[in-house]
Amino acid sequence: MPSPADRLARLTRKPERALGTREEMNRLLDGQLVGTLATVVDGQPWVVPMLYGRDGDRILLHGSTGAGALRQVASGAPAAFCVTAVDGLVVAESTFESSANYRSVVIRGSLESVTGQTKSDVLQRITARIIAGRNDEVRPSTAKEESATIGLAMAITPDNWIMKQRSGDPGRPEGPVDVWCGVVPMTVTAGVPVAAPWSVGPVPPSVTNFVRAHPAP
Amino acid sequence: MPSPADRLARLTRKPERALGTREEMNRLLDGQLVGTLATVVDGQPWVVPMLYGRDGDRILLHGSTGAGALRQVASGAPAAFCVTAVDGLVVAESTFESSANYRSVVIRGSLESVTGQTKSDVLQRITARIIAGRNDEVRPSTAKEESATIGLAMAITPDNWIMKQRSGDPGRPEGPVDVWCGVVPMTVTAGVPVAAPWSVGPVPPSVTNFVRAHPAP
Repeated sequence: MPSPADRLARLTRKPERALGTREEMNRLLDGQLVGTLATVVDGQPWVVPMLYGRDGDRILLHGSTGAGALRQVASGAPAAFCVTAVDGLVVAESTFESSANYRSVVIRGSLESVTGQTKSDVLQRITARIIAGRNDEVRPSTAKEESATIGLAMAITPDNWIMKQRSGDPGRPEGPVDVWCGVVPMTVTAGVPVAAPWSVGPVPPSVTNFVRAHPAP
Repeated sequence: MPSPADRLARLTRKPERALGTREEMNRLLDGQLVGTLATVVDGQPWVVPMLYGRDGDRILLHGSTGAGALRQVASGAPAAFCVTAVDGLVVAESTFESSANYRSVVIRGSLESVTGQTKSDVLQRITARIIAGRNDEVRPSTAKEESATIGLAMAITPDNWIMKQRSGDPGRPEGPVDVWCGVVPMTVTAGVPVAAPWSVGPVPPSVTNFVRAHPAP
């Protein structure tokens, strides 16, 4: 079962085989909610899932000023951010050849802390990416909220990311097969919104549009 | 927007607040296909998405013998494996309070290389976890396939993992709100299987069961 790891690892051996355009990477990043942030703490790997938003050539993250481990990353430690979309299960004529259709990107660099006025700007931009239109439906952040948060940005440069992807049918075996082979499409799907008990008013456009943007496969 | 990172980071400050039972972690691990493997290479964070399977108290991974970076992890380097499920978008009365419902686990340890007869056993166990019943529908791996692969295992011990999760409504604000608030449920959903051109026979039980196990939210 050749895995995404195999393909990413191969990049370190044959960089010219890297797949994926900047536009494809943007589409991947803009279609997912959560990535995995990795850094090194005391020589050990440290990894955490995070909500994020892409803003042009930046990955934006948002956290709490009380989160010590996040400060470690904010201080300029080397970091890697990984986003993966699983697009399908690849069911081949052997388990060895079976795999997943997927798209993944790893961006390497360091996170910069964003301070001052631009901090609420970071939250607004993340929100705009995750649930477009929501910023216009809600109150602005308070000064207290602002002071409790940390905004982080990682630059996307022409050469600090690698994207890999697989799509389509299982590889065709040399001989005939005697079993069903194919792909089961998969996607992250949104269901019917559930209002909180104290919610007021109808489901707003931001939520309706979010649901529409995450249909079943 | 308090993020999963905030909550995981807090664990490093107040370990007693760790949430999630072993059973909940098993359910998380057994319900996802891909995790993110992190290690340290030359002092830098190295991260890659991988298909995996849980087998009792082990995380099993499967890769190519040609993948140098994976060998780095196989050789006993410290590693962390992160699996995240996004269960919903939490739409609060402010962007600051908005979040995601999620479950995540980070398992720390080192990967052990699995050799010999147990290597094909690793592949079978991963397959059994990802798509139950498929092992019985296909031919066994060949000796050539066996020799091209590497099986890796990471032990799950009572104290080498942390799980965090959020579920339910947005936090209730102190004052009244004037906007819709609630949760948009999300899940990884399987669609209608698509046969490869050379596929033979009907969609088998393994695939039908996989689709049933991944319904729309």
